[in-house]
Parts: sequence; structure tokens; C-alpha cells
Amino acid sequence: MEATLVIFSGGQDSTTCLLQAIAERGAENIHTVTFAYGQRHKLEVELAEGLAKELGVASHKTIAVDWYKDITHNALMDTVTPIGRTAGATCPNTFVDGRNALFLLTAAIYAKGLGIHDLTIGVSEADYSGYPDCREAFVKSMEQTLRLAMDWPFRVLAPLQHLTKAQEWALADRLGRLDFVRTRTLTCYEGIPGDGCGTCPACKLRAAGLAEYLGSRGRA
Amino acid sequence: MEATLVIFSGGQDSTTCLLQAIAERGAENIHTVTFAYGQRHKLEVELAEGLAKELGVASHKTIAVDWYKDITHNALMDTVTPIGRTAGATCPNTFVDGRNALFLLTAAIYAKGLGIHDLTIGVSEADYSGYPDCREAFVKSMEQTLRLAMDWPFRVLAPLQHLTKAQEWALADRLGRLDFVRTRTLTCYEGIPGDGCGTCPACKLRAAGLAEYLGSRGRA
Repeated sequence: MEATLVIFSGGQDSTTCLLQAIAERGAENIHTVTFAYGQRHKLEVELAEGLAKELGVASHKTIAVDWYKDITHNALMDTVTPIGRTAGATCPNTFVDGRNALFLLTAAIYAKGLGIHDLTIGVSEADYSGYPDCREAFVKSMEQTLRLAMDWPFRVLAPLQHLTKAQEWALADRLGRLDFVRTRTLTCYEGIPGDGCGTCPACKLRAAGLAEYLGSRGRA
Repeated sequence: MEATLVIFSGGQDSTTCLLQAIAERGAENIHTVTFAYGQRHKLEVELAEGLAKELGVASHKTIAVDWYKDITHNALMDTVTPIGRTAGATCPNTFVDGRNALFLLTAAIYAKGLGIHDLTIGVSEADYSGYPDCREAFVKSMEQTLRLAMDWPFRVLAPLQHLTKAQEWALADRLGRLDFVRTRTLTCYEGIPGDGCGTCPACKLRAAGLAEYLGSRGRA
């Protein structure tokens, strides 16, 4: 079984990806990498490391990209900027310029050193809030660029690419891990794990998807 | 005149690019960025900063990507590995996996914050020693990926793409800066500016190109 390196933040999306990868390939073939890039909540990095270890992955690595907050500005990294959508902007001010590209490139460099070809990332364009680097066109272009940059047959796997949040909850449930994802992951912009603050955009999206999935399950 | 951000190491290639950009757009429209990524010689970073200031660019920034040496290994960053070509390898062991991709991506994130679309990089595939990320196919793919990642009309300019070292010296001469490039830049793997140690692969390539150009000029 081929190994994969999962880009893992400890949020709903990447945890679901990680659980699926473990189910498909076995934990011994799964490596995880978490990026510390000046998040509002350092807890996210510690939580990710704890979950990865608990799930028994072959290796976990945290990479600090400290310079990131020094060259770009957004509400997710600047603690003084209120989270929201600026009038006329195409996406919320929580968009971190180049984030998924940076994660994939850095993960790719690290993966090649480990002899790994597959990279797994939990992006989704279904509920993507207008973030350009969640679109499939970006993911495909990035895969090609990585191959050309390093002469290495990378595959970028984005298993949630076309799933809504409700479908993502359904996937977690099929994996028998709905409660794990619900109670142990951190998606909330305020840094509260599980159901979170309930009022930030990330919590609302997550809760709406869960309600939709649980409603559909109730009717089934 | 549109501004450009020049990826600038203080070596022959990027200095020639910088001088050309200044000649075309005026120094007030030129910004430079230098990466400190665990080079064998920190002198390179200081030399680049000094040259950029002397040439009067609008801004200069050094970005430290310290984690780089922690996730990949090569002779350029590991001071214990002798520089050379491993038997059967497609390129020398000075190849730093993903380096030009990382430089371009980071420069792009920074450029977008400055409102800049153009990125200038001194890669050349004519004398590229087999480095995959010096090929035009990589540069074009990277440009497309950057546009998609950040929804911003980046242009990646690689004016040396098809120039040999001899043609590069000819360009510096046309700009009236042959002596500046020859005496003030640092290309040598041993960290010696100007004509360098004369024996490492970078010095040999540089010297051969210069001899070829000076020979052709003598004949003209």
C-alpha cells in the first residue's frame, strides 16, 4: 500500500480526510504534517499533533512558517482585525493569500524527502466561500507544477473536493467516526473545539451541514 | 510604468535581471526580495541587501525560510556534504528541492500585498545543469498556478530563460555593467565574491561563459 502525507490542521475537513486515509491504507502508511503560520490559536497546532498521535500515524511533523504573517495580512492571522467580509470583496477577509499553495508545496518538498508521492488535502469547493485556492482548477494546476518543479510523480488527492459539509458529515458517519469528528476537531475561528462558539462563519457552516445531514438521516 | 518584484540573491543571474529591470522601468519601480534559507554562506544575504540598496531600489526585503533545511537535504545547505554529482543522478546534489517554486510562491504572496503583478526571476534553462525548476515548462506552469491560487494576474518574467552564460555576460555589457556584475556579485559555492574560488562548478560555468563572451567580443 502506497503511503500518503496528509496536510492536517485538526479541523473537520482534514480530520475527515485523515480518517478516510487511515481506513483505506492503514495508519502505518499515513504521515501527517501541520503548519504553524501565526494562527489566532496555537491550540490548533497542539490539538492536531495530539489527534495524529492518538490515531497512530507513522509520523507527524509540525512545520513553522513564521515569516508568513510578516508578508501578508488577513483577519485569520491579525488578531486585531474583525472577521467578516469587506464590502465588494470576492471572498471573506479570513482568506490567507497562497495558503493552500504554500501547504502543498512545503508538504511536497517534505514528502519527496520521505520517498512519498501522494499528498492528501481537505479542500472543498462546494462550500468554499469564494477562496480561490479551494477550486479544483487550482489543485490540478498545483499538482502539475509540483511534478515539474521536482521531477517527481506527485499526486494531489482532494477527496472532499466536491462534497458539501453535509456530505462530509455523511462520510465521517460511514467511517464510524461522526462523534470523533464532531467532538474532537477544531474548526471555530474563536478557537473552541467541538461545536465551537456557534456564531463565527466556520461554526455556522459546520453546524448547518451537520443539521442537514442529521435531518436527512432522520428521514431515511 | 508597472512595478516588478525581483527575486534577488546577489549572484550573476539575478543581478543581471535586476540591472535590466532598473534600466527598463527605473529603480523607483523595482522591489527586491532575498531568501535566507540556510545557505552555506550568510554573506550572500548581506551582499544582496547591500547591492539592492546601492542600486536604489524602492524596497528590499529579506525573508527567512528557516524551516527549509529541516525538511530537505542537499549539498548547498548541508555543510558536511561535498558538492558534486552522485553517480546516476539526473542533476547535481546542489539541487534544492522546490527552491524556485518556493521563491516564486513566497514572492507572489508578498507582491500581491504590495499591489504588484510582475515577478522577475533569473532562471535559465540553457546552462541549467539539469535542475528541473529552471525549465520554461515549470515557469509557465507556476505562473498559472499562482494566478489560480490567489486570483491575481501575476506575470512571471524570466528574461534569462534562453540565454547561455556567455549571452548573459553580453547582456550585462550592453547595460554598461559588465564590471559591476563581474566584481560585485557572488555565485561561487565557496562564498567568494567576484571571480570566486575558480574551481567549484558555479565558478567554472561563470568563467567559461565570460571567456566565451570576451573571446567573441575580441573577434568582433
